[in-house]
Amino acid sequence: MSPKINAAWHLASRPAGLPTAGNFEWRETNLPELGEGQAQVQTIWLSIDPTNRIWMNDADSYLPKLQLGEVMRGIGIGRVLASRDAGLQAGDLVQGMLGWQRCCVSPARALSKLPPLPLPLSAHFGLLGHIGLTAYFGLTDVAQARAGETLVVSAAAGAVGSLAVQIGRNLGMRVVAIAGGAEKCRWLSDELGADAVIDYQAEDVADGLARACPEGIDVDFENVGGRTLDAVLARINLGARIALCGLISQYNASAPEPGPSNLAHLLMQRGRMQGFIVLDYLDRAHEAAEKLIAWHLAGRLKYRLDVSDGLESAPSALRKLFTGANTGKVLVKVSDE
Amino acid sequence: MSPKINAAWHLASRPAGLPTAGNFEWRETNLPELGEGQAQVQTIWLSIDPTNRIWMNDADSYLPKLQLGEVMRGIGIGRVLASRDAGLQAGDLVQGMLGWQRCCVSPARALSKLPPLPLPLSAHFGLLGHIGLTAYFGLTDVAQARAGETLVVSAAAGAVGSLAVQIGRNLGMRVVAIAGGAEKCRWLSDELGADAVIDYQAEDVADGLARACPEGIDVDFENVGGRTLDAVLARINLGARIALCGLISQYNASAPEPGPSNLAHLLMQRGRMQGFIVLDYLDRAHEAAEKLIAWHLAGRLKYRLDVSDGLESAPSALRKLFTGANTGKVLVKVSDE
Repeated sequence: MSPKINAAWHLASRPAGLPTAGNFEWRETNLPELGEGQAQVQTIWLSIDPTNRIWMNDADSYLPKLQLGEVMRGIGIGRVLASRDAGLQAGDLVQGMLGWQRCCVSPARALSKLPPLPLPLSAHFGLLGHIGLTAYFGLTDVAQARAGETLVVSAAAGAVGSLAVQIGRNLGMRVVAIAGGAEKCRWLSDELGADAVIDYQAEDVADGLARACPEGIDVDFENVGGRTLDAVLARINLGARIALCGLISQYNASAPEPGPSNLAHLLMQRGRMQGFIVLDYLDRAHEAAEKLIAWHLAGRLKYRLDVSDGLESAPSALRKLFTGANTGKVLVKVSDE
Repeated sequence: MSPKINAAWHLASRPAGLPTAGNFEWRETNLPELGEGQAQVQTIWLSIDPTNRIWMNDADSYLPKLQLGEVMRGIGIGRVLASRDAGLQAGDLVQGMLGWQRCCVSPARALSKLPPLPLPLSAHFGLLGHIGLTAYFGLTDVAQARAGETLVVSAAAGAVGSLAVQIGRNLGMRVVAIAGGAEKCRWLSDELGADAVIDYQAEDVADGLARACPEGIDVDFENVGGRTLDAVLARINLGARIALCGLISQYNASAPEPGPSNLAHLLMQRGRMQGFIVLDYLDRAHEAAEKLIAWHLAGRLKYRLDVSDGLESAPSALRKLFTGANTGKVLVKVSDE
């Protein structure tokens, strides 16, 4: 029987800087009755992403801002417990904006039924879904990556970055990975095949790029922004492409920070910097998934999960993304599969 | 008979900020004998461009930096006085890197013979050549401008900007022009057809854009950078394109200045910022010239010349570009046609 009581993290206040526990409020409420065309879903996996932080701001972004008091927005995988829509049945596995809560009642049309995979369910977040598509289309479509080129990936030990490093290798690129800490760097070079690594905790990124990119940079898969992007711009080659995937160095800034000083290099080198959001590629998800799964099954595309246990841990899991504490994809396990 | 004595402006020192008279040295020297494959050219028109300033820096850009003591680099139109190359004859009109000098001896292959025009010779700089091509390909190719879109042009009363405004109109765009001073703004709206103008001397550019672009910005033809670019980024629409043509606000900076804070908008709006240099379009010059001449003859593409008389005036002509003193294309008339 379906649970009647829900538990959820609500947005209690907007963060100034790094989100704190006080920005979230835990509430237990009764679940509403199912209306026509709705389904009740129990959350299994919650994806914790840098974009969660963006949604907490008092400003619209590529999605409307969250209102104070609303259930924290989040992408999740869950199981349908009950449905009043012909397209979904109890037991179906679905993905959608389930929110930071145990259960949700959602319009069925806002949920995507997950296809069966020859992989654990969590691979929909570690390898596929918004993470895999971002890495894949950021490189192949936005950056028009080509074999033989030098690729730089920042936040390379993160969920998207670690896939981008390997996809770059699989496309025949020379890959330079930027990450924080010896352990992450070892993982990137020894297990994921990065040709060179830059540990930003141990050396200046500009020095590292000078060392690791003697022939300049053709493609930058940018997850960080700020000084990292500036250092990259200073070394771009003619016709370089910068796929602007994220600016994690900026998301906790309380006021806009200065952008890259080296924009003139974009002009001189006829470079292109292009922002993108995975939502624009959902209709091509199948194309990416085929590739990603094939690479993974061939041992050429690994992913690592960083799992926090229980919905209660979601706020602290989010903080990991900004303190460099995670390696790979941060997930919260909300209930058993 | 060909003159034996040349006069030229040489780079005496590198500017810190705005170039001064002291950065240039006037020298009169004997012209060398013509070698095989060379031609002697008498300069008629010298094009004064923001890029002259870039070449004076102690850093390579899209061209190698000038060495101290070298004749100042500059694009000119001249007449062949003597030739030892089968491709050129005395009397031919040519264009090339003639330099800031009365006469030059150049490899003939570095000179382009000018086709006859139904227009004054100076139209090769006011309407066509590197100026016209920059405006044309920046909009049509780099920015992929489309009818019905909102175009913003900064430094709109300059040589390239004033053409970009009109080309945008001819392509069916709604054009918002940014310039300094009531007179320039009047010229842009009354004579060149800008739909809205922002006088940055009279109002904050961000306020002006809020007023003039209620439906956001689809294309930015960026000549200025700095705060102007930042204000534009804050209002770009989904899929906006920024053609990065120049960053004139930055060229006199002695240290790199902070870039745009609003880069996150490029990400959220999936915008594209792309640098370009006209050199990459020389092989398509014919395509642009046909359009530009046809529009001009139909009264739909005007240009204005800002002529300084005599080679001696070249350094002060260059300063005009950075003080906002010019309207239209700055030229130095070195000798009679």
